Order: sequence, then C-alpha cells, then structure tokens
Amino acid sequence: MQKLTIIKIGGNVIDNSENLHHFLQDFTVLEGPKILIHGGGKIATETSASLGVEAKMVDGRRITDIDTLRVVTMVYAGLINKNIVAQLQAKGSNAIGLTGADGNIIKAKKRPVKEIDYGFVGDLDESSVSVPSLTNLLQAGFVPVLCAITHDGETQLLNTNADTIASAVAVAMSSAYETHLVYCFEKKGVLKDVNDDATVVREIRSSDFEPLKADGTVAGGMIPKLHNAFEAINKGVTSVYIGKADELAEIGKGTFGTKLSP
Amino acid sequence: MQKLTIIKIGGNVIDNSENLHHFLQDFTVLEGPKILIHGGGKIATETSASLGVEAKMVDGRRITDIDTLRVVTMVYAGLINKNIVAQLQAKGSNAIGLTGADGNIIKAKKRPVKEIDYGFVGDLDESSVSVPSLTNLLQAGFVPVLCAITHDGETQLLNTNADTIASAVAVAMSSAYETHLVYCFEKKGVLKDVNDDATVVREIRSSDFEPLKADGTVAGGMIPKLHNAFEAINKGVTSVYIGKADELAEIGKGTFGTKLSP
Repeated sequence: MQKLTIIKIGGNVIDNSENLHHFLQDFTVLEGPKILIHGGGKIATETSASLGVEAKMVDGRRITDIDTLRVVTMVYAGLINKNIVAQLQAKGSNAIGLTGADGNIIKAKKRPVKEIDYGFVGDLDESSVSVPSLTNLLQAGFVPVLCAITHDGETQLLNTNADTIASAVAVAMSSAYETHLVYCFEKKGVLKDVNDDATVVREIRSSDFEPLKADGTVAGGMIPKLHNAFEAINKGVTSVYIGKADELAEIGKGTFGTKLSP
Repeated sequence: MQKLTIIKIGGNVIDNSENLHHFLQDFTVLEGPKILIHGGGKIATETSASLGVEAKMVDGRRITDIDTLRVVTMVYAGLINKNIVAQLQAKGSNAIGLTGADGNIIKAKKRPVKEIDYGFVGDLDESSVSVPSLTNLLQAGFVPVLCAITHDGETQLLNTNADTIASAVAVAMSSAYETHLVYCFEKKGVLKDVNDDATVVREIRSSDFEPLKADGTVAGGMIPKLHNAFEAINKGVTSVYIGKADELAEIGKGTFGTKLSP
C-alpha cells in the first residue's frame, strides 16, 4: 500500500506567522500523498471579540452557539484555511482547502443534548469519513487541507475538534493507504523529564503504554492523548507521531518526536 | 465534446434564503458537469460594519484594503461558500467549495496602481484558469462552487469580480468542454420593454447586437454585459444565457432568459 501522511497542527503553529511559514516549508517537501488538518487559534477568539460574540461556557465546557458557529466558519474555513492554501501553493504544493461539507468528506452527527447542550458541535463515528472523496483528490495530485468544520448532510455545518478529525481521517484512510498520523503540539514529544526537552522517548509500543503510565513517564494530559493514539493504531493506522511542528523535517531521520507503534 | 454548464449567481439570490434554496434545487437537478460561481451580497457589507471595517471608496470606486480583504475572505470563502456547499450536499449534489487559490484554479494578477490603487484586487488573463485542476475535479464527480477570491501564486489572496471569474472559467474550459455560461441577474433577460417582464428577447445572435443597440433594445448597463458575453462566445464559449435565477428550471425548455449565440 502507498504511504499517506496526515498531519495535524494547532494554534501554536497557526498563531505565529514565522512558525507557520517554517512548518509549511517542511510540509511541502514531505514526499508522497499527504493531508493537513488545522485547528483554530487566537484569530477566532479575536474575531469573535471584534464581532461582539462572547465565548459561551457551561460548566467549564465551550458551547458553539449559532453566532460562534458563524465566526468559526468564517475564520477556520475562510481566513485561516485559505491563507494556508495560498502559502502552500506559493511553495509549490497543490493544496486544496476544505471543510467536511466539501465533497461530503466528513459527515458528523450533532452532539446529542444530555446534561449540556454543546450547540453546533459535530461528533464523528466509523462511517463519517468519505474515503472515495479523499482518495479521488489525492490521486488527482491535490493536497487536502482540512479545517475543523464538518456538516451533518442535512444543511447544518458543525464545529468539530481537529484532533478528532485527524484521527478519524487516519483510521478511515488506512483501508486504502499505509497511514501515518502526526500530531504537532507544544512539546518535542513524550518526555522522560517533562521539564527537559532532551529527554524525548523516541518510540512507545502498545505494550509499553501501561508500564510507562505506572512509572509516571506518561502522566496528566498525555494519558488521553496516547490513549487516543493507540486506539487509532488498533484501528489500522500504521504509526502515530507526537512532536513539535518546527522539527517536522526530522521525521524521515527517525528523530522527530515520539513514535507510537503497535 | 461533453457539455459543461457554468452558472453565476449574485447577491439577489444569496441574500434571500428562499431564493437561494429554490435556485440550488434547480441547480442540483441540472444534468451533466457543472460549476457554480457566486459573488458576495449583503452579508459581507453587514459583517464589515460589525467589525468596524468601513467600505473604502476612491473616486466612486470600491477599494479592497487589507481589512476588507480579510472580511471578504471570511465571508465569501467561509460563510457563504460553505453554507451553499452544505445545502447542495443535502440535496445530493457533490459540491466542493473553492477559491482560486485551491488547486491553483485561478491565478490572478494584482491590479497595477495607476490613477487609483484598488488594493488587493485581482485581474485575470487568458492563462489564469487551471483547466487541468477543474477537469480533474469534474471527472471525479465533484461540483465546484467558486467564490470571488483568487490568489497571485505568491501567497497573496485577491478579491476578484465574480462575473469576470465566470467568464474566464467558461472561456478556458471551452478547450475541454462544450461550455454554456449562465448569468443570473435581477431581470428575466434582455427585455424589449425594460418595464415589461413578458417582453424577453429569447435569442440574440452576434450579428443582431449592433442593430439592437441602434434601435435601443439593448441600452444602459446591458451594453457592457452583452459585450462581455459576446466576447466570451468569440473566445469559444458555445452559448451565454442571461436571466433570472428562479427560472433556471426552464433552461432545458428554451424558455430561460436570453440566449446569446455566435
């Protein structure tokens, strides 16, 4: 099977034009079919504030009301997505910027109202990702750039977590490609010593996960992150990398972040 | 050659959700490959006002400064484009929403500064439209939905007139398809009596244009509209229709608007 690389970036890359430029340069030279998935960032918060749309929180959870949905649709699918595409095109990468509505690439379900009404938030399941649509685009030589907006197939756009999209796309596409998923975050990887960037654990196998939790190497917010990563691997993804965007060029040399494998 | 229909809609369709729904229904049932091109509308003006971005005019000409470009990128490429795509998907049309930056579909040149600096406005020429990119998407079964944002290929997004995009796309695609261009506007077509919708001129051939100007049937703003339409026909477009969006279903019956032909 052909190799497919799926990379997710977040606010810490998007919010800093120098970081973004550097990352997109490294992304452009990555060989083979690839997909970029990006989250939001400060621009969404700033645009909301300028438009007088307040962040709605219920019990500490962020709510996507109709005004917030309008803002994130404008900022994620418009401003951020199209600027990333224009930059990739300038670097020679044939980027095509998309939401989950485009080509019906990601059909979500509006999160059911239980204790909290999250508003226009979309959840994904096994059948959410259209493998034929993405495969058609990849085979035509396009580089899909996906933002964190999906749809329900019945005219409603939905706000969907970008990490979740990345994982769902990687799992679904592993039926057609040898899929490698890369999560870029603020750290260089899983660290033996959380305060020392030089202590990156280069590889964690599925069987290492429990012992690393037990000895405290994997703790706090890393536990759900790695749990989700191993879930993706159990569902067919060949490897999941977790590391820092500015080191992406190292990925071919085996010195990028932490590699999680079966 | 296979038939390709390219339809341009403007604010009078986009600003009214009932008109838009009705139009998209008729668009969905049109047979064969098709491309939708949409302009802006009131939402852009309203969003600009909410963000405190004032419309900049110089000598009666609208200027796209950097703040205006941000707003139109958000509204055209984000809000309007993605809502149209979500509605088309719900109707069973495999829409994919794009700017000219996506897949490098339309590469424009920033308008040179002469008497007026129009700001971030893109002009098109014969080589602006990527026929391979659009053909790849059409052959994969997608229905491209283009908004009025292009790029210069060097990271800069540009605001470009949607009528101009429609014409440039139709001319370029006529090398690969039998291309039919449809401009939807507020009138039912070219009218013998401008105050009587029942007096639509059903067909105007290239050789009729000068006599119709001379006898006053074609006057005012219709002159440049028809001039541009006949230019497109001279450059390979098979036909150009001008009519009202809510009558699109008539197009197969020969009773939609005014048909311009060689």
